[in-house]
Amino acid sequence: MSAVPKSVIWSNGNLRLLDQTRLPHKAVYLDCPDADSVAAAICSLAVRGAPAIGIAAAYGMVAGLHDNETLDNHQLMVMLDERGRRLVNARPTAVNLAWSVNRMLSVAAASQNEKPALIVDRLIREAALIHEEDARACHAIGRHGLPLVKAKPRLLTHCNAGALAVSELGTALAPVYMAHAQGVPVHVFVDETRPLLQGARLTAYELKCAGVDFTLIADNMAAHSMARGDVEAVIVGADRVAANGDVANKIGTLNLAILCHYFGLPFYVACPASTIDLATAQGAEIVIEERDPVEVTTMAGQSIAPADVHVFNPAFDITPARLVTAMVTDRGVVRPPFGDNLAATFGN
Amino acid sequence: MSAVPKSVIWSNGNLRLLDQTRLPHKAVYLDCPDADSVAAAICSLAVRGAPAIGIAAAYGMVAGLHDNETLDNHQLMVMLDERGRRLVNARPTAVNLAWSVNRMLSVAAASQNEKPALIVDRLIREAALIHEEDARACHAIGRHGLPLVKAKPRLLTHCNAGALAVSELGTALAPVYMAHAQGVPVHVFVDETRPLLQGARLTAYELKCAGVDFTLIADNMAAHSMARGDVEAVIVGADRVAANGDVANKIGTLNLAILCHYFGLPFYVACPASTIDLATAQGAEIVIEERDPVEVTTMAGQSIAPADVHVFNPAFDITPARLVTAMVTDRGVVRPPFGDNLAATFGN
Repeated sequence: MSAVPKSVIWSNGNLRLLDQTRLPHKAVYLDCPDADSVAAAICSLAVRGAPAIGIAAAYGMVAGLHDNETLDNHQLMVMLDERGRRLVNARPTAVNLAWSVNRMLSVAAASQNEKPALIVDRLIREAALIHEEDARACHAIGRHGLPLVKAKPRLLTHCNAGALAVSELGTALAPVYMAHAQGVPVHVFVDETRPLLQGARLTAYELKCAGVDFTLIADNMAAHSMARGDVEAVIVGADRVAANGDVANKIGTLNLAILCHYFGLPFYVACPASTIDLATAQGAEIVIEERDPVEVTTMAGQSIAPADVHVFNPAFDITPARLVTAMVTDRGVVRPPFGDNLAATFGN
Repeated sequence: MSAVPKSVIWSNGNLRLLDQTRLPHKAVYLDCPDADSVAAAICSLAVRGAPAIGIAAAYGMVAGLHDNETLDNHQLMVMLDERGRRLVNARPTAVNLAWSVNRMLSVAAASQNEKPALIVDRLIREAALIHEEDARACHAIGRHGLPLVKAKPRLLTHCNAGALAVSELGTALAPVYMAHAQGVPVHVFVDETRPLLQGARLTAYELKCAGVDFTLIADNMAAHSMARGDVEAVIVGADRVAANGDVANKIGTLNLAILCHYFGLPFYVACPASTIDLATAQGAEIVIEERDPVEVTTMAGQSIAPADVHVFNPAFDITPARLVTAMVTDRGVVRPPFGDNLAATFGN
């Protein structure tokens, strides 16, 4: 058993992102000296997971600026604005990306009359704060979710909402890791999560690193595993939660929520406050990213379908709030009615 | 547009099976000179699809025996018995395999006092009859299913229940091909069908050959496609239908039936009489084949998961009869209550 490698590392002004496209075979880091390299890493899914994208983008706002003594105040503000736009445009669905960039821009705006070096220092501190807050949020999600996992320790999860998707520990997997540390006999059914196999490549990798028992299945096997009584609950992360409780998450999440509804199993969504977007009224307003058909028609560079076929490749789907049993957040477990209870917990 | 290659070819006493593991990249045939090579082709899924397996097994009972003048009557009967056992053991779930072998053994038993050459002749005729009957059944399924497809021409299908799974035309795809031939604007959503990708490799291939419009999706995208209103109905094949109407079919079928139930869409199962097993009371009695974990942990020969992980790889699941809207059979469309109506249509 070994520790799970960190998805985002910032040290001495240098940003390094674990290249998750190379997992599980190689754990290698990408050096990101500027915002463009961070945006490219977000686009290519080298860094993925809504919270980890938010953290990477915060550092991406200031990467390489620490030693830059040529920028004047105005040039710095223009550059930050450009960096923010480029980073936010890297992926449309996860809200943490825009949330994190906007927070950095607010700090810059509040300091705009200071010396450039001071603005950069404050931005670096803000990015580190976003990073630390995420780690605290993950631990809080773990604590709040722990009783749910203890009650139903045979869980199915989709995609990767573990340590690799955040600063550490995970969102959906945080209570699993905490339960495991306490000796609870957790067992995780890992959906492989086509097309990009974040379950097979990432969740299986990190559970193996952490010594947690799991069974890898193809996404098609979830219903059969539930029908056999092998799965007691589903817990997933989220890329954006609307004010009414609708959840945007990895494509296939809606499948699982409907299966839970049919089999009478709890369906839990775990996420930090930064994923909850009270400015979006409902799921129908969330832009669903569609990705390159080649993700469906090839595997590891090998073609698995006839040439030139029409493909639909949405990266996310929307699970309606009525299918969600509870949201496990850093501020506690939120239950229906979500419209009221999310506003009460996360509203200003 | 080109014709779909035949899955099973018998000519001049030689059996050739289309090697479906090589599709969609190469359409090559395996020569099968004896029962062992047929059993191996069934095990490796070179030939797959419940009806095609039944046809291949029937020919496998007599492959290579036509010119054999050394066997006496007793030796032939012992050999047929051995061949039957080997073929039936090649795969446990599809009922057509045992049905076909038992039919061949009955013919042999009825002729057991004849000369060996005459017994072999009768067996070859019986295998050809099974083959012809399947082709007629597929056309009948197509005719009976045609009004359903005309009413809901935007269909989703899973795995491959097309021409490649049978003698010709298909089961689930038979009414689709007929509707297409009549100018109905059919559009098929093709589930890729992990782990073995029969949808991406085979269904996409044959729909492309036939010039039918389709969209390839990962299995995870079915619920989202339904939520968008893109899919009007689901039609799948079957490997075995129990007397109460429970359906064993490719893993992931149960997922789709539950999604149809949730979204209020019709869920159709298309199959010939040989797939209906009135001797099995209900789905719980059907043995579900579990296959090699390597099918899940690799894709196109590439490892996609960490080494030495625990995998669950069932090849089929059981859809309870209550989730099936109708069965499209060669003897007409059968509707609930299936216990009564299957017995009335297929009982002796």
